[in-house]
Amino acid sequence: MAARPGLPRSLEHPLPAGLRDLLPDEARHLEQLAQLVQARFALYGYKLVTPPAFELADVIERGLGMLLPSDVLRFVEPESGEVCVLRPDMTPQIARIVATRLRDREPPYRLAYNGTVVRRRIGRAKKHRQIPQVGVELCGIAGPEADLEMLELAVDVLRKAGLSRFTVDISDAGIVRGLVTGLSSERADDITSALAKKDEARLADVASGCAYGDTLQKLARLRGGREALVLARALLAATPSASAAERLLSLFDAAHARGLGKFLTADATEVRGLAYYTGTIFSIYAPGPGEPIGGGGRYDGLLARFGEAMPAVGLGLDLDALAWARKEAGQVDNGRKGVVVVGPPDDMRLFALRSRGVSAVALPTREHAQNYAASWGFALVWDGSVLVDVASGVEVTISGSAAACDSTASSIDSIDEATEAVTSVLRTGARGA
Amino acid sequence: MAARPGLPRSLEHPLPAGLRDLLPDEARHLEQLAQLVQARFALYGYKLVTPPAFELADVIERGLGMLLPSDVLRFVEPESGEVCVLRPDMTPQIARIVATRLRDREPPYRLAYNGTVVRRRIGRAKKHRQIPQVGVELCGIAGPEADLEMLELAVDVLRKAGLSRFTVDISDAGIVRGLVTGLSSERADDITSALAKKDEARLADVASGCAYGDTLQKLARLRGGREALVLARALLAATPSASAAERLLSLFDAAHARGLGKFLTADATEVRGLAYYTGTIFSIYAPGPGEPIGGGGRYDGLLARFGEAMPAVGLGLDLDALAWARKEAGQVDNGRKGVVVVGPPDDMRLFALRSRGVSAVALPTREHAQNYAASWGFALVWDGSVLVDVASGVEVTISGSAAACDSTASSIDSIDEATEAVTSVLRTGARGA
Repeated sequence: MAARPGLPRSLEHPLPAGLRDLLPDEARHLEQLAQLVQARFALYGYKLVTPPAFELADVIERGLGMLLPSDVLRFVEPESGEVCVLRPDMTPQIARIVATRLRDREPPYRLAYNGTVVRRRIGRAKKHRQIPQVGVELCGIAGPEADLEMLELAVDVLRKAGLSRFTVDISDAGIVRGLVTGLSSERADDITSALAKKDEARLADVASGCAYGDTLQKLARLRGGREALVLARALLAATPSASAAERLLSLFDAAHARGLGKFLTADATEVRGLAYYTGTIFSIYAPGPGEPIGGGGRYDGLLARFGEAMPAVGLGLDLDALAWARKEAGQVDNGRKGVVVVGPPDDMRLFALRSRGVSAVALPTREHAQNYAASWGFALVWDGSVLVDVASGVEVTISGSAAACDSTASSIDSIDEATEAVTSVLRTGARGA
Repeated sequence: MAARPGLPRSLEHPLPAGLRDLLPDEARHLEQLAQLVQARFALYGYKLVTPPAFELADVIERGLGMLLPSDVLRFVEPESGEVCVLRPDMTPQIARIVATRLRDREPPYRLAYNGTVVRRRIGRAKKHRQIPQVGVELCGIAGPEADLEMLELAVDVLRKAGLSRFTVDISDAGIVRGLVTGLSSERADDITSALAKKDEARLADVASGCAYGDTLQKLARLRGGREALVLARALLAATPSASAAERLLSLFDAAHARGLGKFLTADATEVRGLAYYTGTIFSIYAPGPGEPIGGGGRYDGLLARFGEAMPAVGLGLDLDALAWARKEAGQVDNGRKGVVVVGPPDDMRLFALRSRGVSAVALPTREHAQNYAASWGFALVWDGSVLVDVASGVEVTISGSAAACDSTASSIDSIDEATEAVTSVLRTGARGA
């Protein structure tokens, strides 16, 4: 197919709306970030499971959690005629696995996942979202200890990812739920919608005349730290939400005692996922992305939908948002790596560099090598006794016997010595040579 | 939903036919294997790209390669009405990326991928296959040097994956193609089908009377090493396949000179992907899986279908088959790892173990800890001064001041000392303590 003049090539070969390719740097960053997070999950005893990318709709939709049916991309599997979905979330898949193939294991279940989910967006934009997710589920522990483990793990992972300025904002789904129980669902929706938007005027309007209308309005102003939760407990003492308020304060104190206090805030009227979560809810924020980089909570009702009633809590991270926060925190290494050797394809320096863990390719001319290195993010061009720092253009001459090394060198020793010199320049930069 | 008595739970929550979950051990093995292979690809200068899991059918089907349109799982994207496919292969996606978003980079293109593809199976079985694939594409080099780089990389990766007994079987698509050019497509199909099955009687039948019928029959017996290729060159000297035979022998010799000889075999009449490949073809075999663990070849026609004519070669590995071959070669570590501590959830030993890179969880009783460790593959249970080797049941008592360590220990030093003793037992096994 010939290129149509004037039309960008990407428009000739479009992707489905909202989907995208990860190009070299971004793909590598996300892969390394996923590995870093998985390594921390593994240290806490979480075992990786990998469910398939699509499943039968009636299985997945049993456990949609916070998502709406309209968020799910459904299709008819052509051979069987069955309705399938591209997974919009991995939690229902993990719940299915716990309830089926792993049900004979000893509880509690500590499972980790790493995969991309697809969420449908309807309306004019018609754009889907593909979200690379990593997370864990801890199933089989009803007590606050499991909630605390999620908070501890979240803080550990984010610190290891290089973030220092982030907030884990905790709440309890039982607080608002207790105050709206008994109201019409329209009224309850109006109230949670006003709380979600932190719209006090609207809240005053829709909550007036409700049994706990005043309480809700006072509660909506209680955010921040421990003092807010103490006030909330007093405010809710004679309401159906008393035990949830007590539970949230206990969790907050326990998390402090576990050393997580620096990263903790609380919000008694968080309503995210109210219909799904049954206790603790948390969201993780960091400078950079305009949305949470992760979150989770307790969803004791989910496993029962797969025939295996069991308490459970989860933590999920959006890798795109986490990568953004890391970049904002100066934690993303955009440094050039590797060496382009000016020489033949079987140049022995390639072997010597790779055996030292240095990425290396060969090209026959200095000019091609420099263009290639600039285009693909290599750090150095190595031409005989000359090293060119690609970013700065600075040239360094390798001194001593190493200088004798080029593609025609017959001595393994001199190649080894020169390669050692080159890897040292790679580590310290051309100025350090 | 209540469990139906007598019905296995997995039948209540089925997966689409042919899809499957990777459970803890298998999921971890495949992830580690993918990382190992990607690290080798990176040393050779290959850059990871990650295309989306589904794409528009008319884009992907431009580059199906060896697959048939019936191998592809198509569905209608509900919002746009566009026909999409779950990717059956990642090569057309990489070709699209090269032709669009990376077209301004300096050639040659060295790109790597890592993802799961889905292939439809039609007929009675109605089972799809999900195949975790890793691979590379090298675009922009027409000469044999690129073919050689694929062979070198394949051998390097498989050796680093711990395989020693494997074969890279090379051929050239031009050989058979040259001999069937001009025949009716039915006749050509009959011949390639007989060659694919190594069915000499059938070949004699369908090739008789063709221009190169005798040549094809003699050629079909030429397999093995260099001698076969020398005989093939002589046999084909006066045919349209002369240059392909010469090219194959040259590649074989060059690969020998590059030190790959030990792993190399040749087959002048390989017909895998004949319609797709334009030169070198290779398949990789190892004891264990009943199918190739990988393969690739030169497909100089693919990029042109995306408007950017460019020579290209590729190498793809089927991670499931590779994992099978590693297991067969005794390279899969099924060893238990990590420690279950008998103690409270905030036991300081958890922190001490994790900071030494040891996976650790806590449970309150010895019995629960042992059951948990046995069920989830932990190596040791640590109860006060006693270590239990989970696989053997052997108990070891930690001696010296470390013995004083339990969950009530107040001295960081004694916990550190005890943890050092435990990690040493983990390394050497309980008998070594």
